[in-house]
Amino acid sequence: MERVTDLDGLRVDDDRLLDRIDTLAAIGAIEGTNGCSRLALTDGDRHGRDLVVSWMRDLGLNVSIDGLGNVVAVMPHPSGAAPVLTGSHIDTVATGGRYDGNLGVLAGLEVIETVLTAGVELPRPLAVGFFTDEEGSRFAPDMLGSLVYVGGMALEEALDIEGVDGAIVGAELDRIGYRGPAPCPGPVPHAFVELHIEQGPVLEVEGRRLGAVTGVQGISWTEVTITGQSNHAGTTPMAMRRDPAVTAAAIVTFVHDLALELGHPQVGTVGMLDLHPDLVNVVAARATLTVDLRNTDDAILQEAERRLARFLDQLAADGTVEIETRSLARFEPVEFDPTVVDQIAGVADELGHEALRMPSGAGHDAQMFARVCPTAMVFVPSVNGVSHNPAEYTDAADLELGANVLLQTMLRLAAS
Amino acid sequence: MERVTDLDGLRVDDDRLLDRIDTLAAIGAIEGTNGCSRLALTDGDRHGRDLVVSWMRDLGLNVSIDGLGNVVAVMPHPSGAAPVLTGSHIDTVATGGRYDGNLGVLAGLEVIETVLTAGVELPRPLAVGFFTDEEGSRFAPDMLGSLVYVGGMALEEALDIEGVDGAIVGAELDRIGYRGPAPCPGPVPHAFVELHIEQGPVLEVEGRRLGAVTGVQGISWTEVTITGQSNHAGTTPMAMRRDPAVTAAAIVTFVHDLALELGHPQVGTVGMLDLHPDLVNVVAARATLTVDLRNTDDAILQEAERRLARFLDQLAADGTVEIETRSLARFEPVEFDPTVVDQIAGVADELGHEALRMPSGAGHDAQMFARVCPTAMVFVPSVNGVSHNPAEYTDAADLELGANVLLQTMLRLAAS
Repeated sequence: MERVTDLDGLRVDDDRLLDRIDTLAAIGAIEGTNGCSRLALTDGDRHGRDLVVSWMRDLGLNVSIDGLGNVVAVMPHPSGAAPVLTGSHIDTVATGGRYDGNLGVLAGLEVIETVLTAGVELPRPLAVGFFTDEEGSRFAPDMLGSLVYVGGMALEEALDIEGVDGAIVGAELDRIGYRGPAPCPGPVPHAFVELHIEQGPVLEVEGRRLGAVTGVQGISWTEVTITGQSNHAGTTPMAMRRDPAVTAAAIVTFVHDLALELGHPQVGTVGMLDLHPDLVNVVAARATLTVDLRNTDDAILQEAERRLARFLDQLAADGTVEIETRSLARFEPVEFDPTVVDQIAGVADELGHEALRMPSGAGHDAQMFARVCPTAMVFVPSVNGVSHNPAEYTDAADLELGANVLLQTMLRLAAS
Repeated sequence: MERVTDLDGLRVDDDRLLDRIDTLAAIGAIEGTNGCSRLALTDGDRHGRDLVVSWMRDLGLNVSIDGLGNVVAVMPHPSGAAPVLTGSHIDTVATGGRYDGNLGVLAGLEVIETVLTAGVELPRPLAVGFFTDEEGSRFAPDMLGSLVYVGGMALEEALDIEGVDGAIVGAELDRIGYRGPAPCPGPVPHAFVELHIEQGPVLEVEGRRLGAVTGVQGISWTEVTITGQSNHAGTTPMAMRRDPAVTAAAIVTFVHDLALELGHPQVGTVGMLDLHPDLVNVVAARATLTVDLRNTDDAILQEAERRLARFLDQLAADGTVEIETRSLARFEPVEFDPTVVDQIAGVADELGHEALRMPSGAGHDAQMFARVCPTAMVFVPSVNGVSHNPAEYTDAADLELGANVLLQTMLRLAAS
């Protein structure tokens, strides 16, 4: 094997990267689209895991699987030094795209294959991982795997979580054969860097091809259950109704207006809303909805939470309906390591592109690793800002550029 | 058999009536409640039909089943005279009560058993029927069976209707064995009178035990589908969103406010509202909801429909979302026959109770028969106005009183 000394000139093999993205996307493919459906710990997720693990083993990496199904593959290395870790997730939302998460894992694999093929000797190993249930679509909270990896939640607690379909995390891990022997929390890496699509419109609007991500918005998820009185829709005068759908509508409107009033970057979303019994001629007995609030500034996020709670209290005050709330997830905003952010921006410059320093609107596994080691992220653009949707798309040239920034950043972190 | 000459003194057997109500309610019983779940043409409906038909045959009635599964049982009678028909339905909403519909059918059976037992000779026969899919919870429109019976919809059209679960009326009738040979439209009765629980709070509030129903509210059902843009809930700035949940909430609020503004007896309900994909961290791609508008005055009902349509046009005008509407059902208000209404009120007086002359807020099979023969209805109170709910309840004494008013009204109609 020929030794490469010009590390700065090392580049990934974009065909190999694109091939792997296509091959993984064929698992759980949504017919007639480019999208994927591989909810965490389903059979689709299992097949995706099996494929990526087979690629890891083909490269001769040391693959470890922990008790929550997090998979980390480390380059063999003579030293016992902590690796520079990259990675992301391969689970998707129910109707997702092919890049979200998958790009970060497969670009990490591509970086390692590039380094191995070049025969580069590094002071410490590189590693790539994928972390269980990042999306949180099946099991709340999201970023569950990386949360447990860094010790933010006890393994036992995570294994007992019940999904929206009634399935239990531990039982599903057993079922798909991904409850592994490696300990949780896992070994602390030297540094963590994650490549991800932006999943928003900012890079495209700003005309940039790279983001050096400075941190992640804080996230607050609340489930609201409104109990009223089911009744016949024709015979109950309006004044005598206790209709939870009307209360739910007021909450949807309030959340939207609240986010507008607090201003960018505050966002607020009601993405889930269910009526029961959900019939045309029956005033509903119960409405259940979720409120997703995010901000990079925790003080404003807390203000948004307080105002929502006050509004719910007002709605319930006259006794027309009963309102119960349950926190599904709460993550404070995260600031990434300025040195790593600078390294990413520097690498981008050297590759001829000015990176946009920007916060992430979405949660990512990197925010969990920021608790235990120097961490940052690289973003590439999402066309039209579309994500969590089969229409999600990123230009092949941007995928390659992002992977090369990841490669060069990991090389520098490994040299430090 | 002893001939009874004091027809005015004839009374039903309340124990027999209550026993039959209990026995039928055991089919599809909702555990832990007094309620029932027997959606039209399900196995539960079949078992209920089998039981009621067996009771009809036990009384020696001539049972006919038509092509839509409407069942009519006529007393044997020497003349070929058209019968005085009573009846209602035995299908329920998904989480319904035990009296809605069932009372009218079983009280009709009790009236006929009382007359047969007494050996009364009448100038024309009495008959009792139950009509398919009155609730409309599984197959729209509601009152489907009686609509087809009176010739308001072609049988072939009704058989092709697809239910909310994808089932087809004709196939389900075949499956449960209730696609019968009797023709549609069916024979026109001499008169039609239906006993039903009020399903609203008016009788209770007014302190009356009987209603002489003067007509039925007009009903307008519209399905609204709102298409926006699915996206990540964290990364899409509020100003760039096309969120159909926000539009759906505006419609729910508008329908509620519109009904309040138009004033009693206008009612407006959004009982069904579904988001897709319905996930906490995904801005929905699509929202589907139903609007149920009712009024006794068709001019005001049309005004409500026009204002809803105008509001939907306004919502769609800026192109943020697309809105499509589909009419699920439209029935004009119905006026019952004043002579029959007077007969009911007169019978009530003779039994010592002043009936309240009132419109019905709910649709009933009687409104279909009003198209072809003199028709009216008798109401008994619903405790707390609760219906379409397992907690639906009517005092046994009121059930008996209602059945006796039905008996005496049918005897008078048969004598005319």
